[in-house]
Amino acid sequence: MVGQRFAVLLDNHPWFRVVALTGSDRSIGKSYGESCRWVLADPMPAYARSMIVQPTEPDGESVVAFSALPADLAREAEPKYARAGKGVCSNASAFRQEADVPILIPEVNPEHIEILEIQRKLRGWKGFIVTNPNCTSTGLTMVFRPLLDSFGIRRAIVVSMQALSGAGYPGVASLDILDNVLPNIGGGEEEKVESEPRKMLGTFDREKIVPASFALSAHTNRVAVSDGHLVCVSVELGRRASPQEVSAAIEGFQSPQEVLGLPSAPAKAIEVRDEEDRPQPRKDRNAGKGMAAVVGRIRADPVLDVKFVVLAHNTIRGAAGGALLNAEFLAAKKYLPQ
Amino acid sequence: MVGQRFAVLLDNHPWFRVVALTGSDRSIGKSYGESCRWVLADPMPAYARSMIVQPTEPDGESVVAFSALPADLAREAEPKYARAGKGVCSNASAFRQEADVPILIPEVNPEHIEILEIQRKLRGWKGFIVTNPNCTSTGLTMVFRPLLDSFGIRRAIVVSMQALSGAGYPGVASLDILDNVLPNIGGGEEEKVESEPRKMLGTFDREKIVPASFALSAHTNRVAVSDGHLVCVSVELGRRASPQEVSAAIEGFQSPQEVLGLPSAPAKAIEVRDEEDRPQPRKDRNAGKGMAAVVGRIRADPVLDVKFVVLAHNTIRGAAGGALLNAEFLAAKKYLPQ
Amino acid sequence: MVGQRFAVLLDNHPWFRVVALTGSDRSIGKSYGESCRWVLADPMPAYARSMIVQPTEPDGESVVAFSALPADLAREAEPKYARAGKGVCSNASAFRQEADVPILIPEVNPEHIEILEIQRKLRGWKGFIVTNPNCTSTGLTMVFRPLLDSFGIRRAIVVSMQALSGAGYPGVASLDILDNVLPNIGGGEEEKVESEPRKMLGTFDREKIVPASFALSAHTNRVAVSDGHLVCVSVELGRRASPQEVSAAIEGFQSPQEVLGLPSAPAKAIEVRDEEDRPQPRKDRNAGKGMAAVVGRIRADPVLDVKFVVLAHNTIRGAAGGALLNAEFLAAKKYLPQ
Amino acid sequence: MVGQRFAVLLDNHPWFRVVALTGSDRSIGKSYGESCRWVLADPMPAYARSMIVQPTEPDGESVVAFSALPADLAREAEPKYARAGKGVCSNASAFRQEADVPILIPEVNPEHIEILEIQRKLRGWKGFIVTNPNCTSTGLTMVFRPLLDSFGIRRAIVVSMQALSGAGYPGVASLDILDNVLPNIGGGEEEKVESEPRKMLGTFDREKIVPASFALSAHTNRVAVSDGHLVCVSVELGRRASPQEVSAAIEGFQSPQEVLGLPSAPAKAIEVRDEEDRPQPRKDRNAGKGMAAVVGRIRADPVLDVKFVVLAHNTIRGAAGGALLNAEFLAAKKYLPQ
Repeated sequence: MVGQRFAVLLDNHPWFRVVALTGSDRSIGKSYGESCRWVLADPMPAYARSMIVQPTEPDGESVVAFSALPADLAREAEPKYARAGKGVCSNASAFRQEADVPILIPEVNPEHIEILEIQRKLRGWKGFIVTNPNCTSTGLTMVFRPLLDSFGIRRAIVVSMQALSGAGYPGVASLDILDNVLPNIGGGEEEKVESEPRKMLGTFDREKIVPASFALSAHTNRVAVSDGHLVCVSVELGRRASPQEVSAAIEGFQSPQEVLGLPSAPAKAIEVRDEEDRPQPRKDRNAGKGMAAVVGRIRADPVLDVKFVVLAHNTIRGAAGGALLNAEFLAAKKYLPQ
Repeated sequence: MVGQRFAVLLDNHPWFRVVALTGSDRSIGKSYGESCRWVLADPMPAYARSMIVQPTEPDGESVVAFSALPADLAREAEPKYARAGKGVCSNASAFRQEADVPILIPEVNPEHIEILEIQRKLRGWKGFIVTNPNCTSTGLTMVFRPLLDSFGIRRAIVVSMQALSGAGYPGVASLDILDNVLPNIGGGEEEKVESEPRKMLGTFDREKIVPASFALSAHTNRVAVSDGHLVCVSVELGRRASPQEVSAAIEGFQSPQEVLGLPSAPAKAIEVRDEEDRPQPRKDRNAGKGMAAVVGRIRADPVLDVKFVVLAHNTIRGAAGGALLNAEFLAAKKYLPQ
Repeated sequence: MVGQRFAVLLDNHPWFRVVALTGSDRSIGKSYGESCRWVLADPMPAYARSMIVQPTEPDGESVVAFSALPADLAREAEPKYARAGKGVCSNASAFRQEADVPILIPEVNPEHIEILEIQRKLRGWKGFIVTNPNCTSTGLTMVFRPLLDSFGIRRAIVVSMQALSGAGYPGVASLDILDNVLPNIGGGEEEKVESEPRKMLGTFDREKIVPASFALSAHTNRVAVSDGHLVCVSVELGRRASPQEVSAAIEGFQSPQEVLGLPSAPAKAIEVRDEEDRPQPRKDRNAGKGMAAVVGRIRADPVLDVKFVVLAHNTIRGAAGGALLNAEFLAAKKYLPQ
Repeated sequence: MVGQRFAVLLDNHPWFRVVALTGSDRSIGKSYGESCRWVLADPMPAYARSMIVQPTEPDGESVVAFSALPADLAREAEPKYARAGKGVCSNASAFRQEADVPILIPEVNPEHIEILEIQRKLRGWKGFIVTNPNCTSTGLTMVFRPLLDSFGIRRAIVVSMQALSGAGYPGVASLDILDNVLPNIGGGEEEKVESEPRKMLGTFDREKIVPASFALSAHTNRVAVSDGHLVCVSVELGRRASPQEVSAAIEGFQSPQEVLGLPSAPAKAIEVRDEEDRPQPRKDRNAGKGMAAVVGRIRADPVLDVKFVVLAHNTIRGAAGGALLNAEFLAAKKYLPQ
């Protein structure tokens, strides 16, 4: 699913051109059109159809490598590309917890890319690995940014209702989800959601990223939705604030100037909805072409301070689109190999 | 939906026989079979098909009145029945917050029925009104009982994923829920879930019910499931306890002896599942013929103390079956008019 | 649903500008944004939000009236507009069976618009009423065109699997369609599908439209799909033809030159897919921006001659988009009032 | 799915007791409870949970072997059991088209079991193989029986909307079917539906089964339904008959006396519904405990003679329940090894 989103998002990209596609062993040597079981509702881009799937080895021409590999394969393959001088923008979880690898959302923690100097020095790479967060962490962390800045965050409990595309293809069996909810995602999803936002919201002191100190608890569920992860959030702030103040802080969030001009950056990174029944996956997942987080139902929480709902498109902002925006940001910041 | 569940559950009931059915103005005078758009997968019971729908007025013969009326109609109609000496077992929310009206789950707060003496005195009724809780509060409160008894409860945050049948019929439009989640139930659902469990778990001091003092926060969502409300729960206990201790306390919960023999009482009021992906609505909603709460994924919560998932069938245990069990309990306790 | 599609399709239309919106009595006088419960995944266009809903009476300024009224209201309202000189492009079924009212698909029966001269004379109208067909008839009739021209059609049996949006909003209750199929659409759907294609494929002899003489049988079903009606078709041709010949005839169909340049006309009115599992509603309904019919699985039929599957977007090509294309065609042919 | 249905249907069976379970290589030696990913909503029967999965080899004790093997494995394994003297009641398609192997529905073609004498002689088996039809053919053939007997059948066109459980587990990916219909089942489904009913409705002349001579055309589709295949049928009869006559003939169908007493036989093999929107999968699939076919919407067909809709539970009557009824029938007819 994520690979297919990459293929679509890179179609006619103003800065990047796809020079090579790689895939699993059984697809190597075949055309992408022939080897790929296309699942997206949008059609396969024409450029991709006839490209021959290459072995997973760095080639001469490419500058950025986008990775949607499973974690175990990523752990092996991504360093090869970084060593060969490529800028790896990875959606895989393999390296997210390494001290010298940033989990990057350009609107949230742009300064974390400076750790790449340490990464290169430490690992002797000419290239680098930058990751984007887990799909569920993405929207959440975007909304936490203005909350942390305006009020501080002490702790938060989050409950996700996650889309089927997050499990890849074939992924969730239809008999498992029709007329049903699965109360677990597996694969360490809850642990990821409990740690990644804290790393991204941590401070970079020129030597290392010090995670934000708030506590986070996650329940993750699978629901019968194609795309768009919905997350119910209850937060205890560093200092008391009314729902109106919280809403104003989120509404007032502005993407850094250096991000706003990027091809994939949404004009408004976080949209706030006032209706009592929004955001909804089907109606809001394409906000900002799938790159915006949408927040609604901001109200007082009788246990912590405030509660609300966040939605983000899991395979666009939460995966392929997030990695692509990272590559654009790194290009703009002159981090990509010339 | 709830009326239809009553019709099914009362078919061949060992203690009760349906002597009259009432309904909306436009159905009065018609047969139930002809006036009712039957929605359940189980067929309409034969006894009901030919019964003529009566005006909503107490008759001579009946002893118990089961009410699935909308709140506004219930507020008007139910007292007429209580005044006429009937035992009203109501699924409506109209009277749940009245000081002298119990919200009853026989396994949870059987002693609360004693407030009916005060109710009768105060209101001059020969009959009474007893309510069962809101569908989402039901499973939650059943599981809170052993937690409160064993460890105390300080506060809890709960997030529901509620079934379509909870909205009645026609209820939720298919276009609103296909490939979607609705992040709000409306109708004061969250307020009900935040108050009813505390009233039920409160103490009765011979004069009034003093609600339990813990804080409760609810997010309520609608998902594409026919029956079975799933609730993610994070709890801070009165005293620390490991997930194993919590699991043992829940597993060890036993229904009061006086409840166990009732026709609709499940042998085990709370079932604990060990699998990492249970309970699920489709697989677990019929536990104990839809009368058991099912708990799973009991684990440590990094923010509060413990977290888990609860499921209960919303139109059986959470509505018609709950009201019926209440009637059976009141009959056994000789509260019903003779 | 159809009204909302009109609102979206007319946003930034190169030829038409919306000057008035009308609606039901309870919405008149309110803004569209406030009175309309928006259901589409695409957002409400900005222009519509602040427009005040007008009474259903012809105004001075407008030239075309697009109607998505229920049949009974259409029967009363549409003639008022036609009498006032407006060109009524109607999605309603009210006048489709009138001898002097064309059911128009510009690619299929453009010459039928000439009957409007008779209509005007007969009814004394300065304007006119042109209808587009029932949503299920639409894709079917488009594909029948090349079959009739190349081989003749003797008879056909068609079975539809229709989308929820065809029933409007709130339309089908979610409890009726989750884990279910409804084997009937109601509202005379099968009769419409059995007669409209024959009228559209009939000949216009300067006096009246003589329906095509083939026999048609329809089974119509509702399935859990948001948009896109899928129809299984078995056809007996006028003369034998192989699936390859049939495929070539359909593939070779070209829209009339005068239609191809219209803003809403798809470059290819009928797309033929070779894959063994296409067309599918989710993947193919947006072909040609929802204006193309998609055909697949063309194969020999052991009972009649050939069988295949057709898909068309029911609220775009099968409703609002169809009516809009009709208006564009009538404008290009100088039929609209100047 | 079918294996699991067998496990449930054989729980507490009055005649049969499960003495051995077999499965794929990786499950052999493990307990069924541990090796099987249980998918049904009904819980796994207690007896099965602790049974050790055996190699697929005939044992000493068993008399009947129920097979839900894939066709390729069945082709190899089933003869081993027949040779060892077991009565194989198979849901696999492997042997259905062999001249000496009956496809059996006891209510439809009980006399076809006599061909087993030829099978035994020809193949030198002490046991035998009897098959039940493909799930979609089942309900269809049951309803064709009274039509053929009363009026004759010349030809029929059938369009199925098939449930997900028919594809086994994991089977259809959720992303393929959410908000979608798949217009093909694959695996030769249409060919099976076009040939099996004719074999079952054929005559046995003491030497071979001569298929019924009518022509049959099938379109097969997958829809988002858990269980229950719905089929739209248009039929040309041998002699004209009104829908009322057809309805009376179907309604009047009675199971043979020797079938009626069998434990799994429904009292009424075919139920006729008069409502305009029945049968529906969710409401009618459990008719006769999933063993009855349900017919509705019997009406005139403008192309052939009559059209209607048939529903049957695909994994009960159309698979495990069908095979079990066959075994019961063969036991009653003294065909099982003693």
